[in-house]
Amino acid sequence: MIRYELHFDTKALEPLMQKAFESLVLERQRGVTGYYDLPFSSMRLLERIPNYPHIKKIAIIGIGGSSLGTKAIYELLRHRIHHKEIIFLENPDPIDLEDKFSRIKKNETLFIVISKSGTTIETISIFKAAIKHFELEFQKDNLIFITDPGSPLERLGSDKGVPVYNIPPNVGGRFSVLSAVGIVPLTIAGFDTENLLLGAGKLVIDFFAHRADHILKKAAFYYSHYPDIKMNVLFSYSSMLLDFNRWYEQLWGESLGKRKGDERIGLTPIAHIGSIDQHSFLQLLIDGPLDKSVTFLKVKEFRNHIKIPQISLPHLESTDFVNGHTFNELINKECEATMESVMMQGVPVDLIEIGSIKAKNIGELIIYYQLLTSAVGALFGIDTYNQPGVELGKKILKEKF
Amino acid sequence: MIRYELHFDTKALEPLMQKAFESLVLERQRGVTGYYDLPFSSMRLLERIPNYPHIKKIAIIGIGGSSLGTKAIYELLRHRIHHKEIIFLENPDPIDLEDKFSRIKKNETLFIVISKSGTTIETISIFKAAIKHFELEFQKDNLIFITDPGSPLERLGSDKGVPVYNIPPNVGGRFSVLSAVGIVPLTIAGFDTENLLLGAGKLVIDFFAHRADHILKKAAFYYSHYPDIKMNVLFSYSSMLLDFNRWYEQLWGESLGKRKGDERIGLTPIAHIGSIDQHSFLQLLIDGPLDKSVTFLKVKEFRNHIKIPQISLPHLESTDFVNGHTFNELINKECEATMESVMMQGVPVDLIEIGSIKAKNIGELIIYYQLLTSAVGALFGIDTYNQPGVELGKKILKEKF
Repeated sequence: MIRYELHFDTKALEPLMQKAFESLVLERQRGVTGYYDLPFSSMRLLERIPNYPHIKKIAIIGIGGSSLGTKAIYELLRHRIHHKEIIFLENPDPIDLEDKFSRIKKNETLFIVISKSGTTIETISIFKAAIKHFELEFQKDNLIFITDPGSPLERLGSDKGVPVYNIPPNVGGRFSVLSAVGIVPLTIAGFDTENLLLGAGKLVIDFFAHRADHILKKAAFYYSHYPDIKMNVLFSYSSMLLDFNRWYEQLWGESLGKRKGDERIGLTPIAHIGSIDQHSFLQLLIDGPLDKSVTFLKVKEFRNHIKIPQISLPHLESTDFVNGHTFNELINKECEATMESVMMQGVPVDLIEIGSIKAKNIGELIIYYQLLTSAVGALFGIDTYNQPGVELGKKILKEKF
Repeated sequence: MIRYELHFDTKALEPLMQKAFESLVLERQRGVTGYYDLPFSSMRLLERIPNYPHIKKIAIIGIGGSSLGTKAIYELLRHRIHHKEIIFLENPDPIDLEDKFSRIKKNETLFIVISKSGTTIETISIFKAAIKHFELEFQKDNLIFITDPGSPLERLGSDKGVPVYNIPPNVGGRFSVLSAVGIVPLTIAGFDTENLLLGAGKLVIDFFAHRADHILKKAAFYYSHYPDIKMNVLFSYSSMLLDFNRWYEQLWGESLGKRKGDERIGLTPIAHIGSIDQHSFLQLLIDGPLDKSVTFLKVKEFRNHIKIPQISLPHLESTDFVNGHTFNELINKECEATMESVMMQGVPVDLIEIGSIKAKNIGELIIYYQLLTSAVGALFGIDTYNQPGVELGKKILKEKF
């Protein structure tokens, strides 16, 4: 279960909420984007994914939308169960590659190459380096491709007998984690992807059947307070949420930074980790300009109950007020206290409280952020799902070789 | 060696540059902040740090300014040499603590507790949990405290015979990595802290003796374009720079988000990793509002020369233009191409090119950012070195127990 609290004025937003809702209904009907239906269509995928009993590790070769979402879910769930390790070969950084290659043994590893276009330069370059380094052969038990139907990578797979899973053409990278992109590796690694999809599907149904107002209120608030507030801070209270933060930054920034005619529109995502960044970004939130909203994300029940012991150290008695309490309590009360202190400045704040870290809740959290992104994009009247701005750099890159 | 390139208009900035320079000279003379002299004073510290031959790992218990800088340097240099592993116990997150405790063996580990005030609630709580979990005794060969002179933690150390190293009282957490805070653990772990300090010291001398103009130009530009540009993006091209990014975010946000009378002033730090985040934040930089500056940070020569092999895959021939080149070339040309594409939008851009990842260069990079922060703060006329805004949350936290 996830609980949502909005601590800002949501009066007079109804017309915007209804407008956003109707836009998303229309998007879904017209198939503008296909992510709304992934929680249901990917259920059928689950039956098709074979076991890989000889495999101990999975190496995902993919970048951006082909890795960030899977990594976010992996980092959240990996502490809960026995699973196959996933190594992410995502950056063409020579030191990082060397480091990760050294942790991979060919015979126990399944390589999964993920690229929507099938020709992502970083991904294919790293794949080629892996082919050479591990003397990889194209076999069906050590290699999988995940890509758009008909892409060059799919054609290579067909030629060589490599299993290929498709991404629906109308699902962009940053909206694709519940497609084969995330579901195939996470299922093979042993995670409970069925409940991940169930959690996501439940919120999709709730949203479209009952107009989940808390999402629409937040979207309408962001739209109506732009451009006074154009930075949206996510303050996540667990080290496990670091990669979720990075996934959020991609989803938000790449979807909501767009031109509309001559106008440049953009909501800037910023993400931090509590309580660490109370010692970092908090000062700016409290005393800096009121140009940010802040979402606090916390976990109600952590899996363990490590306590701060009843130890009173000479001279440090002033710290004893937390003795006997769990770290679970400490980090959550830190979150609450910080949230209150930020609200007192007049900063618009909301809270997302995840009951516990389990697949169902993580599925809901993923689709929550995607629906919110779509709703905000619809109100701005921009194309939430493209990324025309990144092509120029790719073109310049080619000229440099 | 580090090379600095400024790709924005620096005409007419001379009066501001001189003003910033004089402010920093005055700050140094008056001892407003003591960080300017750490590269020299910490040299003497090096002689006092004993060997710990029985130690294989170091567990740093500290948060914010007591860990971010050390972690940034550690993540950059750890790939180069044989060293003792450092584990950072920095977040009161129960899962993270459990995970890290399981990687620590009492008899081979040196625990270093770092807290400027000596009473940081997260740090002391984690310390108490470690005392209980590992049945720690207060001995001089397995425990070190690093804290302000006269703090409660220093007094505890004196009582119990624990070695204590001091942080100069006029050096705040986010400016303290070249004090005992970073130098003691990094030296014991086996890193070349002498060259770290030399690299930093060289830039301090250069700045104060010769008025290093590139720093002052950048500071004057940021000041004179505020508030049109109030987000300062750091785009770092190596996975090794992830923790440096987080250190930058603390330094910048906590220093430059302040009230000045009734006015709220704030420059917002945002940091990303290339080339990964070309598939994430870049779209917003290209098509979003022109309210950001971008600093590209790259490494000229990585330590290895892994190549993209001369493999041409059927259907994927369009990716062959990088074949035969190193990943070192690929990631840097990605940086250059992205930088050019961002500049073409009219975004103010600068480049920091580190010759190679070595201690001397990292020392320079650290002090470069600190000097830049001081110069910007001086122009705004704010107190760069305090953090009054974080006290409210601490007060509310106490009331919650």
